[in-house]
Amino acid sequence: MIDRAAGLVSPMTLLWAGALLASLTTSAPAAERRPNFVIIYADDLGYGDLGCFGHPTIRTPNLDRMASEGLRFTQFYSAAPVCTPSRAALMTGRLPIRNGMCSDKRRVLFPDSGGGIPETEITLAEALKSQGYATGCFGKWHLGHLPQFLPTNNGFDTYYGIPYSNDMDRLNDVAPPGREAFWNPKIEYWNVPLLRGTEVIERPTDQTTITRRYTEEAISFIRAHQEEPFLVYLPHSMVHIPLFRSDEFVGKSARGLYVDCLEEVDWSVGQVLQALRDLNLDEQTLVFFSSDNGPWLTFNEHGGSAGLLKDGKGTTYEGGMREPTIAWWPSRVPSGRVTQELGSTMDIFTTCVTLAGADLPSDRIMDGVDLSSVLFDEGPSKRKAVLYYRGTTLMAARLGPWKAHYFTQTSYRKDSQTRVTHDPPLLYHLGHDPGEQYNINEAHPEIIARIDALVAEHRQHLDPPPSQLEIPLAVTNE
Amino acid sequence: MIDRAAGLVSPMTLLWAGALLASLTTSAPAAERRPNFVIIYADDLGYGDLGCFGHPTIRTPNLDRMASEGLRFTQFYSAAPVCTPSRAALMTGRLPIRNGMCSDKRRVLFPDSGGGIPETEITLAEALKSQGYATGCFGKWHLGHLPQFLPTNNGFDTYYGIPYSNDMDRLNDVAPPGREAFWNPKIEYWNVPLLRGTEVIERPTDQTTITRRYTEEAISFIRAHQEEPFLVYLPHSMVHIPLFRSDEFVGKSARGLYVDCLEEVDWSVGQVLQALRDLNLDEQTLVFFSSDNGPWLTFNEHGGSAGLLKDGKGTTYEGGMREPTIAWWPSRVPSGRVTQELGSTMDIFTTCVTLAGADLPSDRIMDGVDLSSVLFDEGPSKRKAVLYYRGTTLMAARLGPWKAHYFTQTSYRKDSQTRVTHDPPLLYHLGHDPGEQYNINEAHPEIIARIDALVAEHRQHLDPPPSQLEIPLAVTNE
Repeated sequence: MIDRAAGLVSPMTLLWAGALLASLTTSAPAAERRPNFVIIYADDLGYGDLGCFGHPTIRTPNLDRMASEGLRFTQFYSAAPVCTPSRAALMTGRLPIRNGMCSDKRRVLFPDSGGGIPETEITLAEALKSQGYATGCFGKWHLGHLPQFLPTNNGFDTYYGIPYSNDMDRLNDVAPPGREAFWNPKIEYWNVPLLRGTEVIERPTDQTTITRRYTEEAISFIRAHQEEPFLVYLPHSMVHIPLFRSDEFVGKSARGLYVDCLEEVDWSVGQVLQALRDLNLDEQTLVFFSSDNGPWLTFNEHGGSAGLLKDGKGTTYEGGMREPTIAWWPSRVPSGRVTQELGSTMDIFTTCVTLAGADLPSDRIMDGVDLSSVLFDEGPSKRKAVLYYRGTTLMAARLGPWKAHYFTQTSYRKDSQTRVTHDPPLLYHLGHDPGEQYNINEAHPEIIARIDALVAEHRQHLDPPPSQLEIPLAVTNE
Repeated sequence: MIDRAAGLVSPMTLLWAGALLASLTTSAPAAERRPNFVIIYADDLGYGDLGCFGHPTIRTPNLDRMASEGLRFTQFYSAAPVCTPSRAALMTGRLPIRNGMCSDKRRVLFPDSGGGIPETEITLAEALKSQGYATGCFGKWHLGHLPQFLPTNNGFDTYYGIPYSNDMDRLNDVAPPGREAFWNPKIEYWNVPLLRGTEVIERPTDQTTITRRYTEEAISFIRAHQEEPFLVYLPHSMVHIPLFRSDEFVGKSARGLYVDCLEEVDWSVGQVLQALRDLNLDEQTLVFFSSDNGPWLTFNEHGGSAGLLKDGKGTTYEGGMREPTIAWWPSRVPSGRVTQELGSTMDIFTTCVTLAGADLPSDRIMDGVDLSSVLFDEGPSKRKAVLYYRGTTLMAARLGPWKAHYFTQTSYRKDSQTRVTHDPPLLYHLGHDPGEQYNINEAHPEIIARIDALVAEHRQHLDPPPSQLEIPLAVTNE
């Protein structure tokens, strides 16, 4: 059973949300069918962890084929270096700081959290559903596990998946000793529930088959809705530790257990793309592949690699927020291209809503841009800047190729929480120095001034609501 | 003028060399034409420095196309982490320790060196010339600048290039200050000569046009010899510091000056492959692209990147000796494949000689293997092991995915010469941990025992001659 919290949504909030949703005015439907959207997300995948992103011992033939048939982004960002805020940004096209989905006290939502995605937010599923799209979510949600926060109460017709990370809900009485708990574990130790809609259908979730099952559910949904436009959101639980994979992927990878699991995600991508081809939907479906944040580096070879980028998950170095991203739409996105143009997971919201023929919400600040110029032409991208938030702190900002670090902090483990302030900020040229090795702030005060101005402008339009991540479960529910 | 040293080659040596060369018995010529070979070498190129090897801001469309039409190696090695021994191994198919082309005192040959490639060695050019191949070398030689050591006295019909590294022969009176001397320099400061055959035709070499000129010379040679089998060896001087490029590449790259120069090397590759296509030679020419050693990390963004591999040039970590390598032969090498099978630049010798229908030298130990099984089929490679020499010291050895470090030492600059001995050796699993981050020697003594045995076996068949790199120029010539 999922715990329930009462009283988090007031009638007034509901009224306000309704008004906001109504602000999504429908454009005149085009004669041709509007495109379908499929968003496949990996969890904790490193920038360097795909064959087509240069890893020497990882094979990802399906993602490599997707890239060779589509567009590979080398400078595409998540909006946060950890799970909940990153996914909130993907779903809303807005920075987590704008919708309460971040915190300096608790970096993500936990099973004892009482908060979640605010009803006032317009999710991508809500925006597309209002345009007549069928909407399905298959995988890890992590935007609140109480009923009002779950996918089916936030624009999705269908949900099948786990409500938070696969390492939460541990059964302490059978805990494996020490760090090994995080990989090759006893399945029974992880008590995470599997939901259909808002109902728990399995607990603990059998994670060994979960990648396959998400995939099968997503493909069934595509088959069932092939006659109408649809949104499929497929956020895999893998390759987040603890690592699980189906029997047929055991020992398959030259890179070990981590990539056994990644190879199953790669298989999943191949299955979905093939289903689209088989249904003759490939030429009317835009597919994105990306990840929520960088690799979890604290688990040695059981975590991924950011390649030549610095650090990983939890940090605002490039390794924490730059994601291996591919866009695919045969006949529309030219094949085999690689772009250095900037993109963000928040841009997926804006791009999809725009392509669906809807107007964007006009009563709030949106942080996404329409990537059509990059997808369908050579660019340039409308995105010129990236803001790097860790919790509620703007740690760094990128403008063009330049990145200024106002604060730096390495991995997010509790034993390395030392935050260093930089005044003037550290400055890196990410074109010349993608690994953030050579600070050049003394040589370029004029660039720092421009980034300072960008940050000041951003802050003038910022009105952070209370954090959803700090809301406890109501005592009466414990 | 090139200095000349007298008396290095005795009549007895010449006799001995003649006898050895005769040991290359010719196989019966096949009815079909034997393949041409083109070997394009970059200088100090990092493993991570090509688009198709995952660099986010480097564009190498011609090399990427070569890879998409050919075979990309992710585990291909040079035989040494610095220039002279690495090139000696490529040219002879033998470890530098076997032919005196390494030293612990002088890591490469310099303008004041009196040694060079021993006449007793059989170069790839000699081996193929004895089979009727036309042979041309266009670029940086660095196996001795005295006449007897130059390409045209070692099997090449034609030579056009510089005899050693482009940073040697400095004119002190116009020295730019400090470290900046190594990039964006005054052309006149570098007094390196340009040779045709054994004659100096330009000094200082105008390095701004050198990549283009090597390319034009190589293509002219291909055109002139299109009716007969040929070997073209095209070892570019770039992207070794100091960095130069033609006017049309100035400021072209998002990665800065270093990649302006690399983009011209990429352009060169495109020109050569297109010339082969235009002459209808593409289906009878095997082309290799590789580099002599890893990136020169001491020059910040003016050096390259080994991607996720550790360290760079001069070291026996993976970043020092694993090279971004591509093989291309339309109709024979299947297109678009990536292999994790092991390869070495020494295997290029063995593969080419075998494909030319010649027998390999049988009177000496050869260190190359024939890579045909990897090139034309799915493998496996005949190469199971890699030996990592730094000078005359065997620092590390790889067997299958396992690498044992008996000694480690970081970059080769004089201020970081500390060599650390490891007993037992450090052990890394390069499949799971290509970045050499997680030593697992305590868990796998049985693997160390196997690598120890491999090294012991290797040492039983080792009889190092005196170092060529320690021979000074004869006093009478100074």
